[in-house]
Formats: sequence, C-alpha cells, structure tokens
Amino acid sequence: MTQPPSEAALPKGFRFAATACGLKKTGALDLAIISSDIPASAAAVFTQNLVVAAPVTLCKKNLHISRGRMRAVVVNAGNANCATGQQGQIAAQRAGEEAARRLGISPEELFVCSTGVIGVQLPVEKILRALPSLARNRRPSARSFAELSLAICTTDTRSKTASASFRMGGKRVHLIGCAKGAGMIHPNMATTLAFVVTDAALAPGLLQKTLRDVASRTFNAISVDGDTSTNDTLLVLANGASGAPQIKNGSKAFRDFSGALEEVCGALARQIVADGEGAQRVVEIEVRGAKTEAAAKRIAETIATSPLVKTAFAGGDPNWGRIFAAAGRAGVKFNPALVDITMAGIKVLHRGQPLDFNERAASKKLLADHVQILLDVHTGPAKAKYWTCDFTAEYVRINASYRT
Amino acid sequence: MTQPPSEAALPKGFRFAATACGLKKTGALDLAIISSDIPASAAAVFTQNLVVAAPVTLCKKNLHISRGRMRAVVVNAGNANCATGQQGQIAAQRAGEEAARRLGISPEELFVCSTGVIGVQLPVEKILRALPSLARNRRPSARSFAELSLAICTTDTRSKTASASFRMGGKRVHLIGCAKGAGMIHPNMATTLAFVVTDAALAPGLLQKTLRDVASRTFNAISVDGDTSTNDTLLVLANGASGAPQIKNGSKAFRDFSGALEEVCGALARQIVADGEGAQRVVEIEVRGAKTEAAAKRIAETIATSPLVKTAFAGGDPNWGRIFAAAGRAGVKFNPALVDITMAGIKVLHRGQPLDFNERAASKKLLADHVQILLDVHTGPAKAKYWTCDFTAEYVRINASYRT
Repeated sequence: MTQPPSEAALPKGFRFAATACGLKKTGALDLAIISSDIPASAAAVFTQNLVVAAPVTLCKKNLHISRGRMRAVVVNAGNANCATGQQGQIAAQRAGEEAARRLGISPEELFVCSTGVIGVQLPVEKILRALPSLARNRRPSARSFAELSLAICTTDTRSKTASASFRMGGKRVHLIGCAKGAGMIHPNMATTLAFVVTDAALAPGLLQKTLRDVASRTFNAISVDGDTSTNDTLLVLANGASGAPQIKNGSKAFRDFSGALEEVCGALARQIVADGEGAQRVVEIEVRGAKTEAAAKRIAETIATSPLVKTAFAGGDPNWGRIFAAAGRAGVKFNPALVDITMAGIKVLHRGQPLDFNERAASKKLLADHVQILLDVHTGPAKAKYWTCDFTAEYVRINASYRT
Repeated sequence: MTQPPSEAALPKGFRFAATACGLKKTGALDLAIISSDIPASAAAVFTQNLVVAAPVTLCKKNLHISRGRMRAVVVNAGNANCATGQQGQIAAQRAGEEAARRLGISPEELFVCSTGVIGVQLPVEKILRALPSLARNRRPSARSFAELSLAICTTDTRSKTASASFRMGGKRVHLIGCAKGAGMIHPNMATTLAFVVTDAALAPGLLQKTLRDVASRTFNAISVDGDTSTNDTLLVLANGASGAPQIKNGSKAFRDFSGALEEVCGALARQIVADGEGAQRVVEIEVRGAKTEAAAKRIAETIATSPLVKTAFAGGDPNWGRIFAAAGRAGVKFNPALVDITMAGIKVLHRGQPLDFNERAASKKLLADHVQILLDVHTGPAKAKYWTCDFTAEYVRINASYRT
C-alpha cells in the first residue's frame, strides 16, 4: 500500500496526532504522538551502533521498567538528539515527562524517538510548548495517521505506510505501520524510525521474538548507503482491542500474525529503499546455493553496498563483473568456477564462464523501476534476499551540504 | 614526486618499454614491459578477493616455481582478464610465454599483469602481435619509465610515480615505482597494479617480509570506494645492480631500505587516492587512543568508506556527526563519552560533548586539497592512519556507464 491508509485499515484503540513545532526550518510537520487507549504489549529493536542517541537510551530504559507494557510514542523529526551529551539526555527526559503528563500516563509507559541532524542540541522548549494541544488533538483517524507518517520524514520525498489484516476467532485483526528513512540506511537490528500498531493480543515476549525474526528479513535486509543510523528504532504496540483471543506461540494465529507483521515491515522497508536518497530504482539481490542463510545474506549485503555495483545500476550498465567482484570480497568461501549470475532475467555467467548476451537489450531491462539479480554459488541449500537502490549523482548533491 | 622521474632517479639494470596494441579504444598506450638485466629478488602482494583474475593466478604460480627470483613483468591495461574462465587462463599463459621468448628468459621468470574491464575475453592476439617490437624497444631511460606508468592507467586522470634513494657501503641505492588506480580501490593486501624496482641487493624472503609490512601502512590504508579489485598486485624487483652490499635483516641498511620502500609505496598510494574517480581532495583520517593498531585502523577504515562522510567532504560540510556515527558502527568497542574529534584543526567534540565552532570558517578549511581528521577514543595507546577522498557526483558519472 503506498496510498494513505483507509479508515478500515486502522487497528482499534489507537489515536494519532501531528503538528509543526518549529524543528524543521521549512515549517513542516515535525512532532507527533501515537497512543493506545489501553496498555499495549510492546516490542522494539534498536540500532546496534555504539554511538546511540539519547532517546534510544531512554526508550530501552522505559521498556525495561514497564516490562513490555507501553502506552504511547512521542516522536520528533529535524533533530536526532544524538552526540548531545548530558544536555541531550535531559532534553529527551523532559519531552517524555511532559508528554506523559499530558496523556495522563506514567513517563515509563512512553517511547521517545528523534530523527534528524546529529550533534546539535535539541531545542526542547519548542516541543514542550507544542505538546498540550498535540495531546488534545489525537484522533483515531486515517488522516491523523497519515499526518504522523509525514511528521517523521526528514530527507524522504514521500511518507511510507503499510497495512495488513487477518481473521482470528471471528474477529478481524489489523496492523498498520509507518517508517521514515532515505539516507544513513544500513540497519543493524532495525532501521531508523518505524512504528507498527496492531489490535492483536499477544504477550510482550512473544511479540519481541517475532519482531526480531521479521526484522532480520525486512528492515535488516536493506541498504541505501551502508551507513547505520544512531537513532534506528522499530517499535510495535499490540493493544488487543480487536477483541480477538490472545495469540499463543506455535498456533495458526501466530503464523498469521507473523506473516502479517512481515508483510507490513517488508513493505515499509522496500519503500525506504525506493525512496533512497537520489534513487531511481530498487534492486533486489538474491543469493542462492550458500551453506547458511547468514553466508547468503553476507554475500547479498556486500553486493548491495558496493558503490561500483550501485553506480552501474544508476546507468543501466550490465556490468556483472562488479557483482562478481563484490561477492568475492564478502568474506564467504565459495568456488568462483561454480557461480551463475542472472541480471534482470538474462543469464550472464554460467559456472564461472561469461556468456554472450545482447548488451543493449540488457541495459534497457536494467533501467526498470525494479530489477532482480540472482547469484547462485552452488555450494549449499541456503538463500537470502537483500534490497538496495541505485547510487546517483543526486545522492551526492543531497549529502554534500546537508548541514550547511 | 609527481613530475616524471629524472634519469638520476632510475635504479641500475632495469629497462622499460610501452606501446599501444589496441586494447584501449582510445588508441592510448596499453601494453608495457619491465625487465631486469640480471635475475632479481622478487616480492609481491596480491588481492585477497576470492574472485581472482587469471594473470594473478599465473603470477603466484611463477613466483613460487622461481623461488622469488624473477626477471620481468608484462602488463596490459584495457582488459582485466578476470571472470574469463579457462580461455582467460590460456590467454594469460600465451602472453607470458611469448614475452619470455622475446626477452630470452624462462616463462616462470615473468610476471603477467592485467587491468581493465572484468568479464570480457582478452584479445590476446593483439598482445602477441605487439610483443616483438615492444621487447626490442626496452630502454633504461626515464622517458620509457614514464611511458610504462601511463600505459598501465585506466580511469586514472594522470600517471603515478615515486622514487627514493639512500646510501649504503659507499654506493647510492635507488628505488622507483609506478601505480595505477582510481576506482575499485579498497586494497586488501595490495592495490590494483603497482610496480617498484630497485637496484638494492636483498634476499627474496626479506624483501617479501618488508613489503608486506610496508603495504599494511600504505596501499592497504587507502580507499576510494570500498571495492577491492580482482587484479590487485603490488610487485617489487630488487636486482642488486647498485653494487651495494647485500642488505641483512635488522641492519641499519635494512631500516633505510624499508623506509625508502615505505616512502615510495606511501607516495604512490596517496596519489591513487588524490586521483580517486571524481575526487576533489584527499582526507587523512587518524584514529588515536585505541587498544590496538588493528582496532584503530578498523575505525579509521569505517570512517574512510562511509558514503555519508565522503559526500560531506565533497561539499565542505563540517558534519562531524557522520564521522562519529561511522566510528560507532566499526565493530570496535569504545566509550562514546570519552571521544574527541578534530576536523581540519578545529575541535568539534570534546569527551563526547559537542563544542561550538564557526561553521563558515570550518567549511572553508574543509574545502582544501588535503584535510586532516583526528578522532581520539582515549582507551589505549594505539593509533593508525587511513587515506580516502571525497565522493562526488563525478564518481557516479564515471561509473554509471563504464562498460556501455
């Protein structure tokens, strides 16, 4: 789903609001709240970067204190509140305490998230001034969700939302999510900011287990530029308001829920790649025939982050030698003489031997919006997919003067 | 030294020749020979990429058979002879055998090197036709060395040469080298093609030991784009023709020789970075205060290969948050609250706390040809340096249509 979500797609018992508090120079929406009317099971995966933003530290602490039962999220864009020292920690805490007060919940039941420039102190007064009316204006509406999805954007050219549903015990259970991100995208346990809310009922531990598993195949399988954000956070709130029974591990309902969560997270992750800074196309890299899934993913990731591979895709250049060369430096053992490579349906390498192909026809196919690359190393049964985008001059233009 | 070398800088007993055999579409010089008049001690470091070009395999085999006593190098640009299967191996062997025959040496005394596009069969007949006159035209002259240094170039905008000398036992010993490379530069044991010849006398084993050591601080400490070439080869030939005594391990002469070799290799490596595809400036990244040199180098390398850091340098953007974020994902443990960062002489982070600085003045300093970055993690005594270039829209333009 790339259009704004419909009212029917919204899970029950969640409200959303967004406002422009002045953190973005453009005056665009930059502060938002998600809240659940009742306590919700919460799960989260955070950045594995050693340099961690103040709000990430606060989120981890609150999730721990609340034992996975949370009520709300307050999120700002325009300032990451990272590398801001003690002052940054105090700012995150003040924003969280004021938001909790306005929502009538305990500060430990709240996630605080930030995204934007690193190393600039957060002007928290702007947030504190905006919170009272923001809290009052929360609505359980598709429009307020759409505003939230816009408020979290930074260099994104469009908002990213996705939804899914399944039936359980005579009830329909809904999931809806939004994400932001276009640069500094190479998630390591999660990518920049993404929020999923659902009216499914399941225990925090089980929610965390399935989220970690789903993240490895969705948010942790994409790259725009190989850089891992300091603020990466993927949150799920499950409040059980659908009225459907509690989901138990190993049940059909659990498989349905995991599938729906993977559908939402996968769609959001691919939307981030498609909106990669300066990107013209999404490239899906599948590696087959590896000994383990981790080995397959390692090769796919190395191809997906190679500047030479990514610039070739910008020009529709069928330069498969760069794909082969990137695979060869992935740190995974394979025999180059066994490798097959197929680009956009055209086989270019068979068992290590180059094949003749029509370069002009191949180039045309490589200029599509979505290009598939398949590399088979023929050494085992495992496979993995990774999504990346092409690397254009526009990426450089965007990033050469982000701060100044 | 960036000008062509002088006659006085040439080691004794080496001859050079270059010609245009038709591998480059432009008709430029693309085939060259280096030969020693007498057998020389040889040392080499090759790519650690699993995908290895046919000539690299042949070089390793010949060096092993000859037990480190070699006579010559034949090198072509315009075709890497990589991912070319069995046919590529035969092509490399035929070129080597014909060159050896024309030089009157055994085929095992010869290195065969190639650089250029990957995955296209080498038109070896062009090389075979050109070898007789190329072998005849070898000269012990600065001009023929300069032609060699041009013949090995591909996307390079200029040739790269360096020389050094020292006195030993009343004799002057000379070293001279050339290198090529502008893209697919992220050496892993060596970078693309580089050749150093010297009239010093030392045993092959000692030459190999010092070359490996020197490479770790020169060719293995640079990056243009994070991609490791399949053809990386750094060769040294030492023929002893200076008349100076044999250099023994641990002697003052050995330290002089190692220092001179590091001077030549370091100058060539930094010239490669300065000529990085689309590059406007060289960025020297020094990491101090790490527990080990390997840890310091790992952090420096992660910063040096971050597209966000490199694009910020293209625009002179003092975005030190990206440097801090890249360090944080390097996989090396440190405490962010202890870190200092200095950019172009301006301290921007002290013990994890951002400092106020004049952004305009900083931006002006960051637009220089050579920019120094210092990151101190304050956790130990070790340090390392890494050299990279900025990442510009021109890099993308060059690489989006290299093949087509």
